[in-house]
Amino acid sequence: MNPFQFHNPTRIVFGEGAADRIGELTSSFGGKALLVYGGGSIKSIGLYERAVKQLKDAGVAIYELAGIEPNPRLTTVKKGIHLCREHSIDIVLAIGGGSVIDASKAIAAGALYDGDVWDFFTRKAAIQQALPLGTVLTLAATGSEMNGNTVISNWEEKLKRASGSSHLYPKFSILDPTLTYSVPGNHTVYGSIDIMSHVFEQYFSQTTDTPLQERFCESILQTVIENVEPALANPADAAARANLMWCGTMALNGGQISLGMVNDWASHGIEHEVSAIYDIPHGAGLAVIFPNWMRYVYQERIDRFVQYAVRVWGVDPAGKSDDEIALAGIQATRDFFTRIGAESRLADFGIGEEQLDRMAEEAVRYGDLGSFKRLGKDDIREILRMSL
Amino acid sequence: MNPFQFHNPTRIVFGEGAADRIGELTSSFGGKALLVYGGGSIKSIGLYERAVKQLKDAGVAIYELAGIEPNPRLTTVKKGIHLCREHSIDIVLAIGGGSVIDASKAIAAGALYDGDVWDFFTRKAAIQQALPLGTVLTLAATGSEMNGNTVISNWEEKLKRASGSSHLYPKFSILDPTLTYSVPGNHTVYGSIDIMSHVFEQYFSQTTDTPLQERFCESILQTVIENVEPALANPADAAARANLMWCGTMALNGGQISLGMVNDWASHGIEHEVSAIYDIPHGAGLAVIFPNWMRYVYQERIDRFVQYAVRVWGVDPAGKSDDEIALAGIQATRDFFTRIGAESRLADFGIGEEQLDRMAEEAVRYGDLGSFKRLGKDDIREILRMSL
Repeated sequence: MNPFQFHNPTRIVFGEGAADRIGELTSSFGGKALLVYGGGSIKSIGLYERAVKQLKDAGVAIYELAGIEPNPRLTTVKKGIHLCREHSIDIVLAIGGGSVIDASKAIAAGALYDGDVWDFFTRKAAIQQALPLGTVLTLAATGSEMNGNTVISNWEEKLKRASGSSHLYPKFSILDPTLTYSVPGNHTVYGSIDIMSHVFEQYFSQTTDTPLQERFCESILQTVIENVEPALANPADAAARANLMWCGTMALNGGQISLGMVNDWASHGIEHEVSAIYDIPHGAGLAVIFPNWMRYVYQERIDRFVQYAVRVWGVDPAGKSDDEIALAGIQATRDFFTRIGAESRLADFGIGEEQLDRMAEEAVRYGDLGSFKRLGKDDIREILRMSL
Repeated sequence: MNPFQFHNPTRIVFGEGAADRIGELTSSFGGKALLVYGGGSIKSIGLYERAVKQLKDAGVAIYELAGIEPNPRLTTVKKGIHLCREHSIDIVLAIGGGSVIDASKAIAAGALYDGDVWDFFTRKAAIQQALPLGTVLTLAATGSEMNGNTVISNWEEKLKRASGSSHLYPKFSILDPTLTYSVPGNHTVYGSIDIMSHVFEQYFSQTTDTPLQERFCESILQTVIENVEPALANPADAAARANLMWCGTMALNGGQISLGMVNDWASHGIEHEVSAIYDIPHGAGLAVIFPNWMRYVYQERIDRFVQYAVRVWGVDPAGKSDDEIALAGIQATRDFFTRIGAESRLADFGIGEEQLDRMAEEAVRYGDLGSFKRLGKDDIREILRMSL
C-alpha cells in the first residue's frame, strides 16, 4: 500500500424522495442557479417541472442551459460559462447523468477563469477555483456526482480530454434511484459497464498489500453483476436501481476504494480516442475495449487476474493453470457484457481500421498510457486492432 | 436499502511519513494548539518530541493536556475545556488512540458551550459547534479519527455515555501505520476486536437489499482476520499494520460501509456498562460480550448469520442446517478471539454477578437497546449472565 491522501467533502442525499430537496439544498448556496441538463428526458419524467417548482418556491432565480450532449462538447460548456458571467450565477445545478455533471463542472471552473476553459484539459492551466456545484443524478454510471473529475470533447479538433480538481467536488448530490426507473435498457447496460470499468482501472494494479481495497473493488463488481439483469427485466426494481446507483458512486468517489493503489486508466484513455472521433456512448466503447485490454496485459500480473476470475466470477481453479483461470475470468467478462446486450466489436458501430493510427497517436499525446502495463502507440494500436 | 445522508469532510493523510505533516496541518488552523495525549507511549516512541518540534517550527504555541485515561473521564475533559478557554485555543490536536481522540472531541465541543459538557452525553443538549480538531492516530481500533462520535466516562457516577455531531469530524487525521509498530500485543488484539465489533454492529441488521454494504462489511472483517496474527508475530509488519489501520478507519467513518442500513449497537451499549464500572479495555469487553450477543439473537435473522459464517469464516454449508451453519460462524468468532489472546469470560477480569442488575438497568436508561433484536433489561442481564 502506498501513502495517500483522501478528502471527499460531497454531501450525499440518497433514496426515494431525495429529489424533493432540490430547492432547499440549491438555495443554501445563493439566489441564482444555472440549471444544466441534456435532452428531454428530465422533462418526460416530470423532473424538470419538479425542480423548477422547488427552486421557485425557494426563491431561486433559474437560468438554463439545455442540450448537453452525451459526449459533452466544449462549445456547449462555453455557452454555460457565458451564462454564468452574464447573470452572476451563484450555483450550477446539474440534472442528468455523467455528461451533464461533467459539463457543469467545466462550466463551474470556467466561469471563474479568465482564460480559455480548454486550458484545463490541455494541461496549460490548473483549476484554482470554481462556482459551487450541485447535482441531481439520473443515471447510475459515472461517479462524477462524488468526485472532482470531468471529461469534455472538443468536437472541432476531435479530442476528448479529462481534467480534475478538488474544487470540482459537488457541494451536494441528490441520488434518487426512482429517477433511473425510466433509463432505457441500453443505457442501463452502458452505465453498468462504465461502473465496472471504473473499478477495473483501479483493481488491476501493480501495487501490493492492498487486501481491503481489492475486496472493496470486488464487492462493487459482484454487486453490479447481480443487479444489472434484474434492472433490465424490471426497470422499476427499486432494490436493483438503488444498488446500481450506489455502486456507481462508490466506484469512483475520489478513488476511495483503491486508496494507496496506483491506478491504470489506459482503457479509458483508449476509449476516449474512439468516442472523440465516433461519438459512441462511453460505456459501449469500454465494453468493446476492456476485455481486449485484459487479454493484452494479464500476464503482467497474472495473480490479480486469477483472483478476479475466482472471486468475482466464481471460476473453479481446480485442475487449471493460472493462464487458464485468468483467461476464463476475462472470457466471463466478455460473455457477461454480451449477455446483457453490449456490443463486442468496433465494427458493430461501423468503425473500421481507417482511424486506428490517429487514435493510437492521440492516445499517447501526453505520454504512454497506463501503469499495470505501460502502453505505447504500438500497444494501443494492437488493442484497437483486436477490438475491430 | 433505506434513504440516507452522508457527508464526511475529514481529510486523511495516510502512510509512512504522514506524521511529518503535523506542524503544517495544525498551523493552518491557527497559532494556539491544545496538545492532548495519554500516557507516556507517545514519548517513548519519540512522537511527542517530533510533534513539538514541528509545531514550534510552524510557529504554533503549544498547551498540553496529558494523562487521558483508556476510558477517558469527564473530569479530564473538563480540565481540557478549561485550558481551551484560558488560552483561547485555536485547534485541539489529539495524539493517541480512540480514548485521546474521544476526549479531544468532548473538549472541542465543550470549549464553545456555556453549560456542562456532560449535557451532550445525557441528551440534555445537542452539540452546535466545536473547535477544530486534528488527530494523529497511534492505534488501529476506533474509527474516531474519521467520524463525529465520542464516548466519555463519568467515573463518579459510574456512567459511560456516547455523543456525536457533524461538528466533531476531525478537520484532518494523520494515519501513519509506523506509529503503531510499538503497540503491545494485547492492545493490537483489543483494537482489532473493536474494529470487527464496529462492523458487526452494522452488518447484523434487519434491513434488506443492501448487498454492496454487506460485502463492504465482510471485506473489512476478512481483512482484519487475516492481518491480526501477522501483526502479532511481527509488530513492525508494515503491510499488516497499514491494513489494520485502514480497516479501523473504514469500519466506522460515519457509517459509510452501512449507509441505508439500520445499525444495532446493543453490544456496545452493554459493554459500556461493564467498562463504566470495571474500567476494562473496551475491546476486551466486546470480545467477551459479542459472541454471546450473537448466540442470543441469531435466530432473529438466521440468513444473515448463515451468510456471515460462509463468507467470512468459510464455513462449508454442505449437509448442515441453517442453525448449524450460523452457530459454526459464531463459534469461529469466539475461537478466533481466543486464538489471538482475548479473554472470553467476565470472570477473567474478576467480574462476578454482583453488578449484573445494575449494569442491565443502566443499559436501558434511555430505552431498550438494539434493532436486530430489541433488548430489554432481562435480555441484557441474560447476555451478561452468559458472559460470566
